[in-house]
Amino acid sequence: MKSKKNLRVIGFDADDTLWINESYYLEAEEKFCHLVSEFANREEASRALFETEISNLNCYGYGIKAFTLSLLETAFKISRGLISADKLQKILSIAKEMIQKPVELLAGVEEVLKTLHEKGFELIVATKGDLLDQERKLEKSGIEKYFHHIEIMSEKKAENYQKLLNHLDIEPTQFLMIGNSVKSDVLPVLELGGHAIHVPFHTTWAHEQVNTTDLVSFPVVKNITETLNLVLNAED
Amino acid sequence: MKSKKNLRVIGFDADDTLWINESYYLEAEEKFCHLVSEFANREEASRALFETEISNLNCYGYGIKAFTLSLLETAFKISRGLISADKLQKILSIAKEMIQKPVELLAGVEEVLKTLHEKGFELIVATKGDLLDQERKLEKSGIEKYFHHIEIMSEKKAENYQKLLNHLDIEPTQFLMIGNSVKSDVLPVLELGGHAIHVPFHTTWAHEQVNTTDLVSFPVVKNITETLNLVLNAED
Repeated sequence: MKSKKNLRVIGFDADDTLWINESYYLEAEEKFCHLVSEFANREEASRALFETEISNLNCYGYGIKAFTLSLLETAFKISRGLISADKLQKILSIAKEMIQKPVELLAGVEEVLKTLHEKGFELIVATKGDLLDQERKLEKSGIEKYFHHIEIMSEKKAENYQKLLNHLDIEPTQFLMIGNSVKSDVLPVLELGGHAIHVPFHTTWAHEQVNTTDLVSFPVVKNITETLNLVLNAED
Repeated sequence: MKSKKNLRVIGFDADDTLWINESYYLEAEEKFCHLVSEFANREEASRALFETEISNLNCYGYGIKAFTLSLLETAFKISRGLISADKLQKILSIAKEMIQKPVELLAGVEEVLKTLHEKGFELIVATKGDLLDQERKLEKSGIEKYFHHIEIMSEKKAENYQKLLNHLDIEPTQFLMIGNSVKSDVLPVLELGGHAIHVPFHTTWAHEQVNTTDLVSFPVVKNITETLNLVLNAED
């Protein structure tokens, strides 16, 4: 890993980096597949949902509300409009159930944030999620105090990170991004000349998976606690 | 209006300040009321929708996706679950119709932005809307180039503006907010000691209406072009 002596700002992805998220989506998808099981089997429903989500990304973006609208659209599609209002109401209620889920911080998150905060780094959350959802999760989980700012990004491409760096008024080399998605958290930041650490989560949404052949190299750690060694040792 | 000699950043509300928005919501509401007319009259449906929207504000926030989820919930509620899947599908499609609407800039917006940008002010958009929606509208309307940053706020209260000022690293007196909502764009900024100009839009959503008795005083202009005089003359 390159020297990070002049590192100033550390960006954390939120979902599946700070707290569990994808597991709740999988649980919701499971419930959805069950509700539409008279029209399609598990695999067909799941594939149809994925297709709808991808085709809706441009207009709906990310987050629970977008997901729920896609669930409903998929239900109409695979049932050819024959699904009952009762089942649709159950699908709509998935949104609120997801929003009301407890926030489960991943192991080591609080210690890492506390340490880096005390060392004087400016910590930010950089996420594609919904602002309201992410603020709620930060508040519920008690880690809000470590962060200087939450940056909501419509996409996590190099140009979006560049805007963020401009706004923070820092050089790429002063920025480190930590997250569970190689595609969204690692590659675009490296492309700009910044630093990135990949902390894989056990489940990755198909849309976030990348083909790892021909990739540039970057540090991958087992869990977020290990990022501390990389950041603090690189400073020495 | 107080002297604004040291004014540095001008924040613009987006919906119904830069472009038409509320009119599209009213149009969508009209369509919704028609779709549920077998269960409730115009006034009942409208009141039920408003109640649902308010009770969902905390969990869904603002924007088209939140609005659509509330439309669907209201349809289930006032039909007691008896509404047809076909009508629900039509209600769901309101979301995409709204997203695909053209962006109609309000008269004078481009001239105001161009002039203030050329005068060296840093212009930002400060909005409760959805990031993706607002980015799309900025891009479609061709005024993206005048803005330094889009700030998405989950609420427009004094504490949220304070966070924005901290993040911009400026004093309240260096900030002017221009918008169509007294409650969201004017009062919280004045509370912090900043500047604000109210540019009323002809329609205001009931939730944004305030009782104007006992209010502090602030400039109100007929249209956005008139803000130029206030800003530029106050500089002299």
